[in-house]
This record gives sequence, C-alpha cells and structure tokens, in this order.
Amino acid sequence: MNKSIFYHAGCPVCVSAEQEIIGLIGENNVEIVHLGDQSGRIAEAENAGVQSVPALVTPTGNVLHINFGASIADVKG
Amino acid sequence: MNKSIFYHAGCPVCVSAEQEIIGLIGENNVEIVHLGDQSGRIAEAENAGVQSVPALVTPTGNVLHINFGASIADVKG
Repeated sequence: MNKSIFYHAGCPVCVSAEQEIIGLIGENNVEIVHLGDQSGRIAEAENAGVQSVPALVTPTGNVLHINFGASIADVKG
Repeated sequence: MNKSIFYHAGCPVCVSAEQEIIGLIGENNVEIVHLGDQSGRIAEAENAGVQSVPALVTPTGNVLHINFGASIADVKG
C-alpha cells in the first residue's frame, strides 16, 4: 500500500488528529506534513484537493477533511 | 485493539469517507453505524462526542470529525 499523507498546521485539533491517525493506520503508513513549517508543499496539498487542515490524503487519492462540520442536530430533523 | 466506530448518515461524502476508512484501517477494525437508519444510536454518538457526521470514534475515545472545515487559505496567511 502506498502511504497516506496527513497535512496539518500545528493546531491542537491537528496534533490530536495526527496521533489518532498514526494509531489507527500506523506511522509507517502515513507521512506527516506541517504546512506551517513546510509552506512549499501547500501547492501540492491544494493540487491533491485539500481544502482545510487537518486532512488525510489516502493512497487512492481521496481527501478526508477532519474537522467539525454540520451539527448532528441536522441528522435528527 | 478495540474497534473504531464510524457514524454516518448516508450522504455522498459519508459513503466516500466510509470506503476510505475501511480501506485504511480494515473493515474488521471498524463498526459502521448509519444514524439515519439507526436513530436509536444517536444518543450513543452524542455521548461519545460526535458533533457532526461522518465521524470516526477511535478506540481511545477520541472523535475525528471528517468534513470540510476552515479554508486552507487561512494557512497561507
């Protein structure tokens, strides 16, 4: 399996998510990129479809944006 | 390792994320819960800290909300 790439920017949510991702899929299966420190890779992230951080680009090329989105209240309605 | 739980509500983003999560951590390591079909489990999800779907509750009890969040433009600034 190719590696996933986890893009983040050092925020507390990012660091927490990073630890979870590493725990779930193994640190050998994911490359961690800090876009604050490695701004030269922002274009690469954008080209991969990253719209927010933290985000995980999977080996299949899909992007999982990890964040708070719509309220679960919407599911109840 | 205990199983993770992936909560979703059948939206296209949810289904795509589900396939990625299964591919990354293995279908034997994650329980899939469709809150639209299993509304009796919404309270369980809320108690776990789920605020939006799709979300992955990890074996350590943390919640990864998978969605579009803040713009990557903020990282550039």
